[in-house]
Amino acid sequence: MTRGLFITLEGGEGTGKSTQALRLTDRLKASGHDVVLTREPGGTPQGEALRNLLVSGDPGAWSANAEAMLNAAARETHVRQVIMPAIAAGKTVISDRFMDSTRVYQGFAGGADMSLIDALERAATHGLLPSLTLVFDLAPEVGLARAKARGTTNEDRFERKGLPFHAQLRKGFLLIARADPQRCAVIDASQSPDDVFSQCWSRVEEAMQRG
Amino acid sequence: MTRGLFITLEGGEGTGKSTQALRLTDRLKASGHDVVLTREPGGTPQGEALRNLLVSGDPGAWSANAEAMLNAAARETHVRQVIMPAIAAGKTVISDRFMDSTRVYQGFAGGADMSLIDALERAATHGLLPSLTLVFDLAPEVGLARAKARGTTNEDRFERKGLPFHAQLRKGFLLIARADPQRCAVIDASQSPDDVFSQCWSRVEEAMQRG
Repeated sequence: MTRGLFITLEGGEGTGKSTQALRLTDRLKASGHDVVLTREPGGTPQGEALRNLLVSGDPGAWSANAEAMLNAAARETHVRQVIMPAIAAGKTVISDRFMDSTRVYQGFAGGADMSLIDALERAATHGLLPSLTLVFDLAPEVGLARAKARGTTNEDRFERKGLPFHAQLRKGFLLIARADPQRCAVIDASQSPDDVFSQCWSRVEEAMQRG
Repeated sequence: MTRGLFITLEGGEGTGKSTQALRLTDRLKASGHDVVLTREPGGTPQGEALRNLLVSGDPGAWSANAEAMLNAAARETHVRQVIMPAIAAGKTVISDRFMDSTRVYQGFAGGADMSLIDALERAATHGLLPSLTLVFDLAPEVGLARAKARGTTNEDRFERKGLPFHAQLRKGFLLIARADPQRCAVIDASQSPDDVFSQCWSRVEEAMQRG
């Protein structure tokens, strides 16, 4: 059996990742693929409990280092229990956020210790890298306005961190995308959902051809 | 203002740490000390939520690496929000478990990656070391029987890991105590509660004289 593709979607708040993750899942399923759509932090019962602790409450509830630890604990469980078994079984896995979010939210924008983040990433990913990472790029003012309009007010801990933090997120994601162009593709998330989907789909098709 | 003492109690299940932590607190308060009694994992609302995830449920719910991450996230919050401010204000802090439990439960007995544990410890403790660590030593058969009789069945995830795991815990705690005799004192926890208290109290008095 061939290993399945592992596709991650990354970017700031309100960039449309979750919508496009669903559309990619539907399109891949329609083409006969067996798809597992999942998300981080979360993806397992234990990880969802950590997500709840991370994304709700006061912005100062956790330091950036502690956030990185919690994300990594959720990720380790997610990779071991969900992602690796699915890929080994030939399924396509689509994850709404993965390791780049920790590097950017906690590391680049949050100020977490980079050697801690390296150690956490090694342990949490079990060496698994995404085949393709779609980096959703959007002006943070636009993304935050979209996120507010969406109104998932119980998950707004990061939205409340202020515009300078979100401007740093955008810079951080672009930095990673440019440093690793083989894995990452920048998606212009300011376009219409249909246009954004077209950009995403052409990158997924390329990744499937690469295998 | 002089910095307060930071005293930690370490050891396996059913070794009587929590009972002695209470007695030490009472005795120190009776001698006019301002004492903060706390515990790990826990010690803050966020840390207690993580404790709940760690100590309940299936023994295989988290890998040792993920456990180490969760313990460290709780510890970082605990050190920053509770322990350091109390010590700076001249209070004596007594913590039922601290960093040695992670080294032993997750590292030595659990098989977590030691370089990960080092990175987590650096970030979580903010460089703070206990002034005194009381290491409660007891045959694991006796400790587990005591823990079972106590019957806190919602916190039995580690108790259920089996005797070989608990024999490793004892070895690990003794290894640390012998490697760091300036900080650590081994307490013979097989004696009566009064005798165990006498051992603990004489170590605390020594530590107070050292200052």
